[in-house]
Amino acid sequence: MSRRILFLAFLTVFLLAAAVGAETAPDPTGAATLKADPGKAVDYVWILLCGFLVMFMQAGFACVESGFCRAKNVTNLMTKNLMDFVVGSLAFWALGYGILLGTDWNGLIGTSKFFLAGDSYDVETYLSFFWQMVFAATAATIVSGAVAERLKFNAYLVYSVVVTLFIYPVYAHWVWGSGWLSKLPFGLGHLDFAGSGVVHAVGGFVGLAGAIVLGPRFGKLGKDGKPKAIPGHSISLAALGTFILWFGWFGFNPGSTFNAHHLRISVIAVNTTLCASAASLTALLLVLGRTKKYDLGMALNGALAGLVAVTAPCAWIASWAAVIIGIVAGFVVVGGVYFLDSLKIDDPVGAVSVHGFNGVWGLLAVGIFADGTYGNYADKAPFVQGLLFGGGAGQLISQLIGIVVVIAWAFGCGFILFKALDAIIGIRVDPHEELQGLDIVEHGTPGYPEFYIPRT
Amino acid sequence: MSRRILFLAFLTVFLLAAAVGAETAPDPTGAATLKADPGKAVDYVWILLCGFLVMFMQAGFACVESGFCRAKNVTNLMTKNLMDFVVGSLAFWALGYGILLGTDWNGLIGTSKFFLAGDSYDVETYLSFFWQMVFAATAATIVSGAVAERLKFNAYLVYSVVVTLFIYPVYAHWVWGSGWLSKLPFGLGHLDFAGSGVVHAVGGFVGLAGAIVLGPRFGKLGKDGKPKAIPGHSISLAALGTFILWFGWFGFNPGSTFNAHHLRISVIAVNTTLCASAASLTALLLVLGRTKKYDLGMALNGALAGLVAVTAPCAWIASWAAVIIGIVAGFVVVGGVYFLDSLKIDDPVGAVSVHGFNGVWGLLAVGIFADGTYGNYADKAPFVQGLLFGGGAGQLISQLIGIVVVIAWAFGCGFILFKALDAIIGIRVDPHEELQGLDIVEHGTPGYPEFYIPRT
Amino acid sequence: MSRRILFLAFLTVFLLAAAVGAETAPDPTGAATLKADPGKAVDYVWILLCGFLVMFMQAGFACVESGFCRAKNVTNLMTKNLMDFVVGSLAFWALGYGILLGTDWNGLIGTSKFFLAGDSYDVETYLSFFWQMVFAATAATIVSGAVAERLKFNAYLVYSVVVTLFIYPVYAHWVWGSGWLSKLPFGLGHLDFAGSGVVHAVGGFVGLAGAIVLGPRFGKLGKDGKPKAIPGHSISLAALGTFILWFGWFGFNPGSTFNAHHLRISVIAVNTTLCASAASLTALLLVLGRTKKYDLGMALNGALAGLVAVTAPCAWIASWAAVIIGIVAGFVVVGGVYFLDSLKIDDPVGAVSVHGFNGVWGLLAVGIFADGTYGNYADKAPFVQGLLFGGGAGQLISQLIGIVVVIAWAFGCGFILFKALDAIIGIRVDPHEELQGLDIVEHGTPGYPEFYIPRT
Repeated sequence: MSRRILFLAFLTVFLLAAAVGAETAPDPTGAATLKADPGKAVDYVWILLCGFLVMFMQAGFACVESGFCRAKNVTNLMTKNLMDFVVGSLAFWALGYGILLGTDWNGLIGTSKFFLAGDSYDVETYLSFFWQMVFAATAATIVSGAVAERLKFNAYLVYSVVVTLFIYPVYAHWVWGSGWLSKLPFGLGHLDFAGSGVVHAVGGFVGLAGAIVLGPRFGKLGKDGKPKAIPGHSISLAALGTFILWFGWFGFNPGSTFNAHHLRISVIAVNTTLCASAASLTALLLVLGRTKKYDLGMALNGALAGLVAVTAPCAWIASWAAVIIGIVAGFVVVGGVYFLDSLKIDDPVGAVSVHGFNGVWGLLAVGIFADGTYGNYADKAPFVQGLLFGGGAGQLISQLIGIVVVIAWAFGCGFILFKALDAIIGIRVDPHEELQGLDIVEHGTPGYPEFYIPRT
Repeated sequence: MSRRILFLAFLTVFLLAAAVGAETAPDPTGAATLKADPGKAVDYVWILLCGFLVMFMQAGFACVESGFCRAKNVTNLMTKNLMDFVVGSLAFWALGYGILLGTDWNGLIGTSKFFLAGDSYDVETYLSFFWQMVFAATAATIVSGAVAERLKFNAYLVYSVVVTLFIYPVYAHWVWGSGWLSKLPFGLGHLDFAGSGVVHAVGGFVGLAGAIVLGPRFGKLGKDGKPKAIPGHSISLAALGTFILWFGWFGFNPGSTFNAHHLRISVIAVNTTLCASAASLTALLLVLGRTKKYDLGMALNGALAGLVAVTAPCAWIASWAAVIIGIVAGFVVVGGVYFLDSLKIDDPVGAVSVHGFNGVWGLLAVGIFADGTYGNYADKAPFVQGLLFGGGAGQLISQLIGIVVVIAWAFGCGFILFKALDAIIGIRVDPHEELQGLDIVEHGTPGYPEFYIPRT
Repeated sequence: MSRRILFLAFLTVFLLAAAVGAETAPDPTGAATLKADPGKAVDYVWILLCGFLVMFMQAGFACVESGFCRAKNVTNLMTKNLMDFVVGSLAFWALGYGILLGTDWNGLIGTSKFFLAGDSYDVETYLSFFWQMVFAATAATIVSGAVAERLKFNAYLVYSVVVTLFIYPVYAHWVWGSGWLSKLPFGLGHLDFAGSGVVHAVGGFVGLAGAIVLGPRFGKLGKDGKPKAIPGHSISLAALGTFILWFGWFGFNPGSTFNAHHLRISVIAVNTTLCASAASLTALLLVLGRTKKYDLGMALNGALAGLVAVTAPCAWIASWAAVIIGIVAGFVVVGGVYFLDSLKIDDPVGAVSVHGFNGVWGLLAVGIFADGTYGNYADKAPFVQGLLFGGGAGQLISQLIGIVVVIAWAFGCGFILFKALDAIIGIRVDPHEELQGLDIVEHGTPGYPEFYIPRT
């Protein structure tokens, strides 16, 4: 039923596109664009290759989430991680991109470029779409970790569409699409270089809403009501996924200059690495202090936390600030995990702490550490200045406003979405299905049919 | 015996190369080439990095094929996927490249540049060789999926050499080496932008021949003679492999401009993504309609099917056409799998449907959807026009001729090759070896020696 | 205890950096650097993307080492492979980079640019740091394979710091930092294009020292005192890791021009591939001759051996020489493995043969096969000439001196380091811990908790 509607909607979308696709278009060939600016060739190479790296992060998320969850749900998690990109890219093509970067309406929403139709058949627009699409898909895929092992698949499909088609692009429009947050009268307006807030906090807080609405997995709370760790089925898969994510992040952050002629990209690459390293080491040492064990899971999440935290400030800070931001990120992710546990909120892979809380920390860090050496996606003045570098509290205020807004928007939309879905189709699988694992129930395909896995 | 011959052949090859390698050469340093065209630096960066991505697809194929097959054959499949690249790159260096891009003889075959010797010691030739080599290796590796779990390893080595040294380069010469297919007097001649036909249909139809000559695996046909699904041993490996392939395809398609100054590369990247997404979603929904399950295997193969189908037309179409081509590709791959099953042809990983059938569909799509905005590897006129865009039937006729030729050539050569090999050395392992698994028999190394895998 | 010291050291490091980070700096923005040379944009894109590929090799090493070892140590190996990059990048940022490329003091050591502070806040310096950092981390991670399955984790952390902060950068300074080896009065001085010696031999011989000091694993030597093979737990993981390494090596070698305007990069990419292929095939055939089995482990190590061997000469040779160097590399790696076995030195993943012995072979090959078509990181004369190409014995002598030095330095430092660590904190885990596996003991996290793995 809902499938038929989905399919019909999908059909309508492309027929509509076909109808309008025949209009004349500025420069689909690219020759005129290149003639106007021969330096574009390098920019295209840079942006596309970085975009490919960002797309590859989908593999990283898939591996991390699968590895940190149980073998009985691995098919389900892999399908989700594939389909959020699949459905997300189509939804973003249909409407999301236009909402993000179409003609601005009152600072609230974009209103053109849907289906890349008409004038959008242009190399510049396609390039911009490609870049924004892989970012939108990242925001969508972050959620799947927080709602893992108990969310129904059809609910997942619907939520993926809603995130990439509405929740993400609207907020992204406010920050990156000349929207109202970008025009706050403090500092240079709310700034988020590569998306600590736009991508990660949005994904993280929608995920938090999902985790709360769903409630904890069976077995997460012991008989005493205290949360227990549910170990993941494959540490090697989770570790490989983290390496892939780190690799992909080199596209995410440096590529966000959207311009190869800003040599600042070298600074961004260095900051990205050092912040991740500092956060990972800090997280490892913090858990070591508590448990006397070198906890790989926390070290992996620490690295990701550092990557998330540096995503907003990476272009505006020096290496030593990246290290400090990373150390704090290590505390934030470890503290976040314990904090959610204390609230009995079950986030199987730590997505909320990694992406939500550290996304917020990254936004804040811009207002503190931005050192006046790089502008607003520009290698010339006005440069971004934080509290420690003569910027006064202005930039920090813009950052704080953005933080309040992103939490309210993402958590609010997410909460309404999951509550509504729950009322309409029910979002949680049946108890016996959850115990059996989603692979059999929803997919008919166990992840490792030949291996002997004693059932508990 | 055959090993000794192989080794001697190999030795001869490099001694020959050493003998002729001392000739003078145009520009091995690269300084003169750069001086003549300073824009070459960007092109080299683009082509090489895209080529690296294409090479990385080998990892994707290895993971997909291994994941979709049983644990008892994983060492065998990994060895095959490694060695087809190893043997293929050497064979292609020795003869294949010269046959593809050496001086044309009557539109049929290339006749120079063997061993990259003599005048070929030139940065331009090496660049071209690198690009063509990773493509040749891709064609070779596609076959391994169709003949998995029952082909002898020495037969595999021989076939890999024959594909990369003869079957692939001859056909590729016809299309990409100024051969006769490229000069058909309809439309702009037979066109295949990045190789739906040259790479994928060739691999797929050689694979079909292999699957037919080998016959189905033990257990594939039930007692009632009906085909049964044999589940793969690791869904996570197969899914990871698909993500890697998708990632690598961004080198395969956009890189095929072989020129970073065609900003059309952004359009190609977008089309590649959207077609894969549309095909994956379609395949998922089609199987859902039949089985009420969200089938990950088909969704993965759907994504690959879309990637294959868009490979030929990707440079000549708009995004909406990519979506339509993808939807059709989803039908083709699902239908293809059921069709082969009905013929009792055992293609363990669906390679024939993904690469063969969708390769053909991609070639056809050029003749229908090419919209006159991009030329024959050129950003200027004459532009490629299909049936729907004022091109009349001309381009479509060229495409249909190419389709007939590629099927006849690949299937014909493949059939003769596997039949001949079967007569000479026997290509199928013994029944008890197949039951035990090829890992022990051929390699002496089980894939997962510590895990308990109940034998069926 | 030692953890607290580590943490305090770490804290001091960044406070120091913060203190000096406020100085003025040449060009943190990048605009001036670009204006002075607009071609820099392509160079930055090339160097950064290649650097990302090199970083991704960390994932490859992690997978290869984990796959070749037992399931009970997979968490340990993944943690080590993550933390050597984490700790290594921070240590290299603090001191290592300055020692390598800071102001030279008597050809022995660099003395500035610590913490990237002060004048180092410059896009050029950050770019150089990023590149050197991923190389330093590679040297560190090579060791982990040789000392796998028995080294204590805290000893591993200390050794990672010492390698990236002292052993590696000092030797690298001698070769790449205008140090004394680069100024030897024979040929053009000691040459090592991308680090067969600087990275791989250093890592390999430090690893050899570690393997000797640690002694073999329990079960490695049979009751008769003869070494037995201990199979790895996941062939697919090891194979995937090798593909990732090969992929990453395309950044390692071609990227080492550190300049996209040397079109010689195409030659380097081809040589890298062909040498790896020739070595892999040779290793496969050699073992086939002995055991009648197609040994995947040796084919994988063969490919890596070829990659290591071609790393030093890749820029200075033609394709046929790459094939010959690869064939020899195949013999070296197979011979090396048997040789170490005969000495009862236990190198679980073959790291010493792959990186140490073939690193040395690569250095030697420069002195033999360099053919006078490319200079010392320059596309103009003086070109590098080996024995076979009119260079006389000069270059070969410089290479031989470098070989003696790298073995003495790396093995010597490594031996002292591991002996000292053993005396102070003990470097080998307790026997019962080794039998139980390091995952439980050191990390509290088994790698695959749900799978049934019969204990032997």
